[in-house]
Amino acid sequence: MSLLVVGSIAFDAVRTPFGERERMLGGSAVHFSLAASFFTDVRVVGPVGDDFGEAEYDVLRARGVETADIEHVEGGRTFFWRGHYDYDLNVAHTDDTQLNVFGDFQPKLSEDSKTTESVFLANIQPDLQLQVRRQCESARTVGLDSMNLWIETARDSLRHAIGSVDLVLMNDAELRMLTEQPNLVRAAREVMAMGPHMVVAKQGEYGAALFTPEAFFALPGYPLEAVIDPTGAGDSFAGGFLGYLDSVGSEDLSDQTVRRAMTYGSVLASFNVEQFGTERIQALTEGEINRRFEEFRLMTHLDAQTVELRSAG
Amino acid sequence: MSLLVVGSIAFDAVRTPFGERERMLGGSAVHFSLAASFFTDVRVVGPVGDDFGEAEYDVLRARGVETADIEHVEGGRTFFWRGHYDYDLNVAHTDDTQLNVFGDFQPKLSEDSKTTESVFLANIQPDLQLQVRRQCESARTVGLDSMNLWIETARDSLRHAIGSVDLVLMNDAELRMLTEQPNLVRAAREVMAMGPHMVVAKQGEYGAALFTPEAFFALPGYPLEAVIDPTGAGDSFAGGFLGYLDSVGSEDLSDQTVRRAMTYGSVLASFNVEQFGTERIQALTEGEINRRFEEFRLMTHLDAQTVELRSAG
Repeated sequence: MSLLVVGSIAFDAVRTPFGERERMLGGSAVHFSLAASFFTDVRVVGPVGDDFGEAEYDVLRARGVETADIEHVEGGRTFFWRGHYDYDLNVAHTDDTQLNVFGDFQPKLSEDSKTTESVFLANIQPDLQLQVRRQCESARTVGLDSMNLWIETARDSLRHAIGSVDLVLMNDAELRMLTEQPNLVRAAREVMAMGPHMVVAKQGEYGAALFTPEAFFALPGYPLEAVIDPTGAGDSFAGGFLGYLDSVGSEDLSDQTVRRAMTYGSVLASFNVEQFGTERIQALTEGEINRRFEEFRLMTHLDAQTVELRSAG
Repeated sequence: MSLLVVGSIAFDAVRTPFGERERMLGGSAVHFSLAASFFTDVRVVGPVGDDFGEAEYDVLRARGVETADIEHVEGGRTFFWRGHYDYDLNVAHTDDTQLNVFGDFQPKLSEDSKTTESVFLANIQPDLQLQVRRQCESARTVGLDSMNLWIETARDSLRHAIGSVDLVLMNDAELRMLTEQPNLVRAAREVMAMGPHMVVAKQGEYGAALFTPEAFFALPGYPLEAVIDPTGAGDSFAGGFLGYLDSVGSEDLSDQTVRRAMTYGSVLASFNVEQFGTERIQALTEGEINRRFEEFRLMTHLDAQTVELRSAG
């Protein structure tokens, strides 16, 4: 099995109430691929500039991520984002965005990339997402993320892109904005009516909810005493989710399989925020993932029972 | 077993995007006692005026709620609240508050009320909560709710009241405000350091989280396509929670018992919001409660498993 991600590769400068980093590896495709690499073979497509060196490639290669399709733009500079978080760590404040080589990005897929079983279209312009989708005709599971910018400026394109995928992973506020439905259940149904058969509403510290035509499944956020840097958590969630799904193969998209995918997504997102950038995921072990999976299971576990309720009057 | 609630009894005028009611039975003690009445014997303490008639008493009596300690203030009028909700049903907008007889309320407990096993101090002025707590010395489980008004105007009194109870049920934003801790896990720990050994953070549509010194348990909100009127949902949650706890007796405060209490609280709150005021809970049946309990259980259920994760590189 193998999984392709197309998205941003970046340098991030981040300040939170718990510290700051002036320049660290980031971008949706990076966070996604590191998380997914615990489950399956991952290939990254995205542009970088001359400032992206061996040290950065090594972070990806150390986790077995295939970097051959990373496009090096001669004379260019890598996408740069500067932002900060105040005490409400759910809200990122952008201080500076330099698109650089990402501004002219036209995804070019190698033959190996075109034939992966699973694809994640990270948060990029929706016309590009659709363009990538059309190059991966044989993919069996395709997921997509997006953001308020594209809902505001390219809503029709985004609806087309959504119509071409199996799975949408977006923040709950963005799902409401996209569908103009204040009720999340209805918003998720409207997105499924566009084509996808799975919708994941990411809810920050409140966890995540999964909607399919038949089922609903939700997990709370992991109760962390210290969230150091939430940057990339949504992409780590998507990486855990799609990485696990790809590892089991699309023959088994049973209810328990997608629930486990939700849980691995939650596990990877919860580790992501424990340190700055990719620091925690780089140091993560399989044992830690399995232990936290079991913690999530026990945290929501309820024994079956039907009590005899008291009659009225 | 028996359960006492001290709080407001009110008439509510409510407008939501789905309709309006000009005058309906409400108040924290009413919502709480109707919900709790499915599990145990409930007694209500709270003041009413001349406008509170047999029709209102009958709503409580029909569910077996003991109304002997409702204090009828001759010549007075019952507490009145007028409010509305826009499409964000998490936020109540108050248009009018007439405290009436509730403004001079001094809780007087009968001997029967003083000897109940469980007590809920609904959202009233914290000095009154403490005064009631001291009259119920033999109670084994005492819960408390509060609100931003008391955090702002009577913080020290509220901390004293909290120090005298076993269980705090508050909105997560209020727990953060009370402790000035943006992180919910730390906020809950700080509240436990004041005395209570259980803290429930109510999270509106996101569900609720339970903190004890040893454990964490969380449930998502029930995925409703139509939330008609959220008024009273928090009190119905508390009623289901404490009603169930009282019914099993405080000898069995095992982990699974408090998880079931959380679930019954979530069940009752989810029914509360399906119609205006007390309408849905008045029509509720034991079968519906048991079926939704099982839905909550399945909605978060995850089979145990440890997969062989892929090695890096």
